Amino acid sequence: MTDTWTLHPDRALPADSVTRPIAREIYLAVRDLPIVSMHGHVDVAAFADDEPFPDPAQLLVVPDHYLTRMLVSQGAKLPELGVGPANGPGFERDPREIFRRFCAGWKHFRGTPTRYWMEHELVEIFGVTVRPSADTADQVYDQIAECLADPAFRPRALLDRFGIETIGTTDPAWSTLDAHARLAAELPGRVLPTFRPDPLLHPARPSWREDLERLATASGIATDTYAGYLAALRDRRAAFVAAGGLATDHGHLSADTTPLPDDAARTLFEKALRGADGSGISMAEEAAFSAHMLFQMAAMSAEDGLVMQFHPGVLRDHDPAVAATFGPDKGYDIPVVTEFAHGLRPVLEAFGNSESFRMIAFTVDEDVYSRELAPLAGVYPALRLGAPWWFLDAPDAMRRFREAATETAGFSNMSGFVDDTRAFCSIPARHDLARRVDAGYLARLVAEHRLDLDEAVDTAADLAYHLPKAAYAAR
Amino acid sequence: MTDTWTLHPDRALPADSVTRPIAREIYLAVRDLPIVSMHGHVDVAAFADDEPFPDPAQLLVVPDHYLTRMLVSQGAKLPELGVGPANGPGFERDPREIFRRFCAGWKHFRGTPTRYWMEHELVEIFGVTVRPSADTADQVYDQIAECLADPAFRPRALLDRFGIETIGTTDPAWSTLDAHARLAAELPGRVLPTFRPDPLLHPARPSWREDLERLATASGIATDTYAGYLAALRDRRAAFVAAGGLATDHGHLSADTTPLPDDAARTLFEKALRGADGSGISMAEEAAFSAHMLFQMAAMSAEDGLVMQFHPGVLRDHDPAVAATFGPDKGYDIPVVTEFAHGLRPVLEAFGNSESFRMIAFTVDEDVYSRELAPLAGVYPALRLGAPWWFLDAPDAMRRFREAATETAGFSNMSGFVDDTRAFCSIPARHDLARRVDAGYLARLVAEHRLDLDEAVDTAADLAYHLPKAAYAAR
Amino acid sequence: MTDTWTLHPDRALPADSVTRPIAREIYLAVRDLPIVSMHGHVDVAAFADDEPFPDPAQLLVVPDHYLTRMLVSQGAKLPELGVGPANGPGFERDPREIFRRFCAGWKHFRGTPTRYWMEHELVEIFGVTVRPSADTADQVYDQIAECLADPAFRPRALLDRFGIETIGTTDPAWSTLDAHARLAAELPGRVLPTFRPDPLLHPARPSWREDLERLATASGIATDTYAGYLAALRDRRAAFVAAGGLATDHGHLSADTTPLPDDAARTLFEKALRGADGSGISMAEEAAFSAHMLFQMAAMSAEDGLVMQFHPGVLRDHDPAVAATFGPDKGYDIPVVTEFAHGLRPVLEAFGNSESFRMIAFTVDEDVYSRELAPLAGVYPALRLGAPWWFLDAPDAMRRFREAATETAGFSNMSGFVDDTRAFCSIPARHDLARRVDAGYLARLVAEHRLDLDEAVDTAADLAYHLPKAAYAAR
Repeated sequence: MTDTWTLHPDRALPADSVTRPIAREIYLAVRDLPIVSMHGHVDVAAFADDEPFPDPAQLLVVPDHYLTRMLVSQGAKLPELGVGPANGPGFERDPREIFRRFCAGWKHFRGTPTRYWMEHELVEIFGVTVRPSADTADQVYDQIAECLADPAFRPRALLDRFGIETIGTTDPAWSTLDAHARLAAELPGRVLPTFRPDPLLHPARPSWREDLERLATASGIATDTYAGYLAALRDRRAAFVAAGGLATDHGHLSADTTPLPDDAARTLFEKALRGADGSGISMAEEAAFSAHMLFQMAAMSAEDGLVMQFHPGVLRDHDPAVAATFGPDKGYDIPVVTEFAHGLRPVLEAFGNSESFRMIAFTVDEDVYSRELAPLAGVYPALRLGAPWWFLDAPDAMRRFREAATETAGFSNMSGFVDDTRAFCSIPARHDLARRVDAGYLARLVAEHRLDLDEAVDTAADLAYHLPKAAYAAR
Repeated sequence: MTDTWTLHPDRALPADSVTRPIAREIYLAVRDLPIVSMHGHVDVAAFADDEPFPDPAQLLVVPDHYLTRMLVSQGAKLPELGVGPANGPGFERDPREIFRRFCAGWKHFRGTPTRYWMEHELVEIFGVTVRPSADTADQVYDQIAECLADPAFRPRALLDRFGIETIGTTDPAWSTLDAHARLAAELPGRVLPTFRPDPLLHPARPSWREDLERLATASGIATDTYAGYLAALRDRRAAFVAAGGLATDHGHLSADTTPLPDDAARTLFEKALRGADGSGISMAEEAAFSAHMLFQMAAMSAEDGLVMQFHPGVLRDHDPAVAATFGPDKGYDIPVVTEFAHGLRPVLEAFGNSESFRMIAFTVDEDVYSRELAPLAGVYPALRLGAPWWFLDAPDAMRRFREAATETAGFSNMSGFVDDTRAFCSIPARHDLARRVDAGYLARLVAEHRLDLDEAVDTAADLAYHLPKAAYAAR
Repeated sequence: MTDTWTLHPDRALPADSVTRPIAREIYLAVRDLPIVSMHGHVDVAAFADDEPFPDPAQLLVVPDHYLTRMLVSQGAKLPELGVGPANGPGFERDPREIFRRFCAGWKHFRGTPTRYWMEHELVEIFGVTVRPSADTADQVYDQIAECLADPAFRPRALLDRFGIETIGTTDPAWSTLDAHARLAAELPGRVLPTFRPDPLLHPARPSWREDLERLATASGIATDTYAGYLAALRDRRAAFVAAGGLATDHGHLSADTTPLPDDAARTLFEKALRGADGSGISMAEEAAFSAHMLFQMAAMSAEDGLVMQFHPGVLRDHDPAVAATFGPDKGYDIPVVTEFAHGLRPVLEAFGNSESFRMIAFTVDEDVYSRELAPLAGVYPALRLGAPWWFLDAPDAMRRFREAATETAGFSNMSGFVDDTRAFCSIPARHDLARRVDAGYLARLVAEHRLDLDEAVDTAADLAYHLPKAAYAAR
């Protein structure tokens, strides 16, 4: 550690003296390529309104669940980090206090990607020169706060500074897309909506009927029949396509895509609708219905060309008490065993060889890389293997992904790097890290004489830019 | 990339400057050991007839499903690659066109073992000096075609040139073994049959009754009773033993080996026989019956000494429409979750400590290496852990196998390297690659002072030659 | 290999020339920290009586199931290794013969941790200077036997020499803890009991009723009612706490912790009690009851502060015939697929945020590291991720653990190194190896500029000493 905190230019490249120079050469060839960020969760309002970010805690700590989870695991309470109902007990209103708690816990992030990304953000974006700690928390806070007051740190300016060519947002099916309409005029082709219908496809969720109403309102089509429900979904997809949308996004517990006979689907829909708060339908029936609806979404994608992003295998809100107090997505999501070979079979049998369909599949169950996803992506033209996602979007996990998937799927059947973040300032850090890790992997292939250097440079550019661009191109 | 395409002598050895020289020393000590290739799928007719191979496409492209899968995933149609019914739409009859399509797709093989093996084949076997591409396709094709016209490139000559001491073929239970009889006289002990009864053990397959007839014809024993069926299988096994066969080969969906009571098995057999095209039996009943028959095969192996090769866990013909059009094994086989601890228990309880029985178990579900297969092979004397198979027969996957299995199973409980290919010319490439990867793994143990160099060299020779020889020795 | 057998000071550190010096610096900073060994299986009598160890075979070979398994897999019979009933056929009474068999099989341990640990033990503890082999067996035996006659090799002396600050033993719930009482006086705080109630929680085990009687005797509370059973368990836990115990230890087939309604649990208990030898209860009912009892154990831990060590996922006595002949734990235990996300949910929902509860979870199913255990430990404050256990307590497996778990769980949510051995002399070898592997992992992070050197040294000390100390601190 030197007195001034800096980032090493070779960070995250392989250490050994043979591979590193090759990795550096590959990395430098792709470092400055534009960023395509099609699977993001930044609120569209940030770009539409272009207001300054409120404060360092609201920007960097409160919305980042990687970060709050780690502090909770070490004894912090969510309200102390500004998470939860603002009128709840222990809710911290002072952003500086929140930021101090984060800095005091800096040690706990050692070895995690949060640590890596945050270093990048603090040093590269905000010019911080001291390592965060209880002692330096205020100094770091002030430095960032000063930046945020500068117009150069407003969302659109950062979009330029970060080199983001296109960014996708995630939007409920009933979104009016007003903000996107404004952005289409002011920043054409830069900020694109993504159609996310999850709540509408899960009739047992308490909000289902309410969400159906929202869908009806947005589409102007009554959703109290199965036919109306499908028509309204189709209508909203068309609206997303019209607004420049290129993709849909689906998070289900299971990868099952088995369609039901029309009658059976209609019956389940009606049964769910009759029950109070969706309670008319059993968990098994809901699972069958949502698998069926995934198949319907694939069928609609084969019609309208929206690329289908699919990331199953997460048990949402593992601790129901925490979810009840702090809201959905705050209750600790945990990955579970995921099965793709049988699960995706119906969709792949129907559309896997279609030129008008594309699915990009993500997983947080690493086992399926070499066993199922690489073999599937390595033969079905409609399937691309997505980048390592969420917990796996980390240096060693990304390397394992390359090592597990490439030998079977090759590079051409992959999506290239896709971030998946609501932490706007982490986007350049994440893409930079992925480019470094890919450069390291490719450099090893070169050093082992399994690939020529010109091929490695060409492949690195594919993974960083050309493959994401191609994977999300309208079908 | 240099102007002339050559292979680096250190390819696939570890890059770092400490480990590579050790790896090179280990590799050179085993590079020229003879090849034992007991699990092959080259047609016995190639060796019996010793005719020249027809053309570069038929030799290198059309029969290699690794290669055609990858081109299909990138948009090629199987008929364009010469696969499918010769009278079907789009079927390509010109081998040069097929070869051009392969060369034009060369980029898509980056990072895959196909790329590595093919480089070896083109450069080492056929003396090709340019990298394949759309531009060089004809030049490469002509170079290979010229070789194939030379008697030095006939199958038996290549057998010698490749240093293949013994090669196993895979033969249906009803095979007359005529070609093997001829080879036993002309090339004694060199080409050995392997007993593969899979279709006979799966009564729900459409061809089951027809295959039973073939079995009856070959054995001269009526197969319309359960007792006759078992007797006919036993008879054919004896014929394989007499023809020099050392092993059987079993590919099932599940690793279950639970035997049924005799009465129950007989009842299922009769029920299946009564149904039209095997439809008299449910999928669950078929699963129970084929598990039972695996147990019977193990029992017969404990009697006749044929080594039982077992590689479960593959969902055959994932896309039924493709399989219907292009035939079995063309419909995209995909690995699935495989369970060995419970599945193998009945066979291991019965024969796992027997000196007259041996099973070699393979998997394409990597998870089971450290969890199940290494612990099982590390205690039951009758069980050997097979080499990484199919998608896992690749440099990084082989390294993962060593790292995951060795610490629990040691080396002595492994089969050593076993290829599994119908691509004849890839055999020396595959064995050479395995020797390099094993040398790299062993060199790391030496460099980390976990093994002495003399031990590493001795172990490398075991893995390359002595262990396969011993694993398949008659019991 | 030199003529004199020595251990390289850099063994098990990474080979490459950039990482090794960093690893060496980190390792040397923690090499001599005291050993905290809270999850051990050495018999408490060894320390209470402090008698000399009988002979080299009884000390190093007979009780070590890693070692005997490997020799069995290569054709040895358990009785030839001194395992089994002393009046059984083939039982070897001569320790020198047993030791010769071990030395003759030395080759089979290549690449395994047994080899690594044993080298450490032979060279560092007993001053052996020749590699074991058939030829050197007697020389090695004599050297060790001579040591064992020396008072410096008695258990308590070795405790000091090994630098063991605290060692846990594993004791049945009905243990009188007499030996621990003696040790509390003579070696205060040094040898601590661990409460292991497994047999009492599995009513289908043949010994269950007998064990209930033992529990009743030890506690003075009748165990013929469900209420009495719970009260007796609670009573014995209190006795363990009073004797300095800090933890409980639980090995179940499944990780399920779902509680039953009180009535249902009572009914199952009574049903089991009425049956002959527990046969009144089905396997499914036993599974439900033992899951329920895990929840009860967690509830009691939240009351009395005993840290709950949990290592599910092992199929005990895979070969029932071997178990019947040679006794429990000799029948080849084999890991199986283990599910934690749903399994631990009831306990974590109830106690996962409690400051008075701690669970340390271990697995032999590596898949769950990145998928389930790291995400769970990375958010629930009451859960710590245990060290790689049993088959995974090996150099490459430990490295995989760090790589798979750290990016999600960080270091602070881990137990630090925990050995799990009945082989007393292997304890310093195991801790030393873990410190080396961790140093290597941390050195890579430093070499890749993902961690500063001062942080790496601090973390290495945490993993070696401070985290185990904290993880097992009374709640």
